[in-house]
Amino acid sequence: MKHVHGGNIYTYKNCLDFSANCNPLGTPESVKQAVRDSLDHLKDYPQVGYAPLKEAIAAYEDVKPENIICGNGAAELVFSLCHALKPKKALIPVPTFAEYEQALESVGAEVEHVLLKEEDEFRVQDSFIDWLHKDLDMVFLCNPNNPTGILTDREFLFRLLRVCREMGIFLVVDECFQDFIREPGQYSLKAQLPRYHNLFLLKAFTKRYAMAGVRLGYGITENEELLEKMTQATQPWNISIPAQAAGIAALGEVEYVERARKLIFAESEYLSEELYKLGMTVFPSQANYLFFKGPDDLFEICVGQNVLIRDCSNYPGLGKGFYRVAVRTHEENERLIQAIHDGLMEARKKTQEEEGEE
Amino acid sequence: MKHVHGGNIYTYKNCLDFSANCNPLGTPESVKQAVRDSLDHLKDYPQVGYAPLKEAIAAYEDVKPENIICGNGAAELVFSLCHALKPKKALIPVPTFAEYEQALESVGAEVEHVLLKEEDEFRVQDSFIDWLHKDLDMVFLCNPNNPTGILTDREFLFRLLRVCREMGIFLVVDECFQDFIREPGQYSLKAQLPRYHNLFLLKAFTKRYAMAGVRLGYGITENEELLEKMTQATQPWNISIPAQAAGIAALGEVEYVERARKLIFAESEYLSEELYKLGMTVFPSQANYLFFKGPDDLFEICVGQNVLIRDCSNYPGLGKGFYRVAVRTHEENERLIQAIHDGLMEARKKTQEEEGEE
Repeated sequence: MKHVHGGNIYTYKNCLDFSANCNPLGTPESVKQAVRDSLDHLKDYPQVGYAPLKEAIAAYEDVKPENIICGNGAAELVFSLCHALKPKKALIPVPTFAEYEQALESVGAEVEHVLLKEEDEFRVQDSFIDWLHKDLDMVFLCNPNNPTGILTDREFLFRLLRVCREMGIFLVVDECFQDFIREPGQYSLKAQLPRYHNLFLLKAFTKRYAMAGVRLGYGITENEELLEKMTQATQPWNISIPAQAAGIAALGEVEYVERARKLIFAESEYLSEELYKLGMTVFPSQANYLFFKGPDDLFEICVGQNVLIRDCSNYPGLGKGFYRVAVRTHEENERLIQAIHDGLMEARKKTQEEEGEE
Repeated sequence: MKHVHGGNIYTYKNCLDFSANCNPLGTPESVKQAVRDSLDHLKDYPQVGYAPLKEAIAAYEDVKPENIICGNGAAELVFSLCHALKPKKALIPVPTFAEYEQALESVGAEVEHVLLKEEDEFRVQDSFIDWLHKDLDMVFLCNPNNPTGILTDREFLFRLLRVCREMGIFLVVDECFQDFIREPGQYSLKAQLPRYHNLFLLKAFTKRYAMAGVRLGYGITENEELLEKMTQATQPWNISIPAQAAGIAALGEVEYVERARKLIFAESEYLSEELYKLGMTVFPSQANYLFFKGPDDLFEICVGQNVLIRDCSNYPGLGKGFYRVAVRTHEENERLIQAIHDGLMEARKKTQEEEGEE
């Protein structure tokens, strides 16, 4: 598999990275300072149960600390969910974040797919519910979906949640990208947690505060038995000292997140229009990234212009020609548009020359 | 359970910590600097597969990079080993590091125990091999053992390895504390890896470089199928950016490790003698910590003197009165001895007063 994940800035060293979807404002200085301040404590083991961090997240989310579990990135929680629940059969829509399937397969689960279709703009359809059955143990749903940025509305989610409960299916909703949608309150299932103990919500610091390298994510559920099992399936020191410190500092960055949101709303429109003008089919993403269809060789064309985009052809359910780009600052987005423009022109010229030679 | 793990400096805030077993020289400055230098990269995802770190470990260990797997601390690898091998039955000696059993139980394994006996100084006996049988899938052995510091010699290990292979049992040897024994070359099974694909060795940065808070450990095996399964059972970004940077820097600290070793050899003798003079039964640990038997209330007595020791009464196979202390610098070790001395005197005085009152 080529370009398996976004954010591979290690292979493409001199590229401006649009392949990872983090806050375009970069890591807040307070987060860096918190890591700096933790240097003298690196000799110590991290606090088991990370009570101060849990308290801070609980205050931020307005939930009880005992309903929170942290992970070495939200991705660790995807795996510990599967290790804890040991599902035999699970259902996921495709295309979606690749780690759900990897984690499910690592515990030997059989994974059923519901194909999201291009003609539906990759939207989860009401008929998704028809694919549920009593042999299923688990459903993963990413909202907004990664890589498409498409939101699934709450009325549908309520219905899904109810049917899942009736059928004894556990529902994991990944809300990692909801910080950057216009009306998160209209989509989050947080208020349903007390009533639905078959629900687990995934959240990340990674995207909200541009701190992917620190590794910190969290989950919320009122299912105590599940939290106990997840804790049992995980080492006690999984959240590093820098991560615990960084997390607490990050939660204070309210204005920074607001600033990023405004930037993303404006820039998403700009980028979407410009990509359209360049001939791309842009899907209506409501997240901090755009998903579009373009020429099959656009990834290589962009690398040639020192810009890294996410080639989505390795997502199950997608073929060649699908791409994802993060929404970044205006200057950076201009550079992306220029790069695609110049790259396409060069490619066209080359083709014409080759045709001329024939 | 009380005092479940060592290193709980968060509950016992003003205590000098002898309960965690790290390098007494503290985190090297080069490691802190590496973390500091990584601050501008926190926005990026960590490098999947951590090739530069793997190369550095491979050079240090003189093994091939493809035989190395890193964990978010060695403890993560204990869990991913179990998630990958999915053992139904496993055998461990007790007392030993608690996470083997927790990880085994989290995958539903039945855990059989071989009790190490006080009258044998908690040494693994030749008869350990008699407890092996064909229904076992996995054996964990910590060498030197935690919390006892007792080494198991290589002749026995060779035999164990052979019998395990014959019976189709996977052997995990935790060599995390071998950096601080006098003759690691005489005990490590590294040279056996090419011949025994049922062998996995655990190593840690935590202890060697006093960087428990960073979370970085590694394992070595020539069993490619196992490495593939462990990778599949783990998220791709498990080693944070600070950890990758810290690890590479740490491996350059050759003189620092040598200095720590000399300090530990000298101080271990000093501490052992002084504990003996205070009436403790000190077992012949060859690691960077001492294991001893003393009064049932010694933990509380020490906390009263602002010193934190490891109460080992919650280890399966141990009862009240067993303790572990890290070997630290001479000044600190003197403080420990003084604290135990003063605490015991105070306790005796109090008892005499109470008896006088009766």
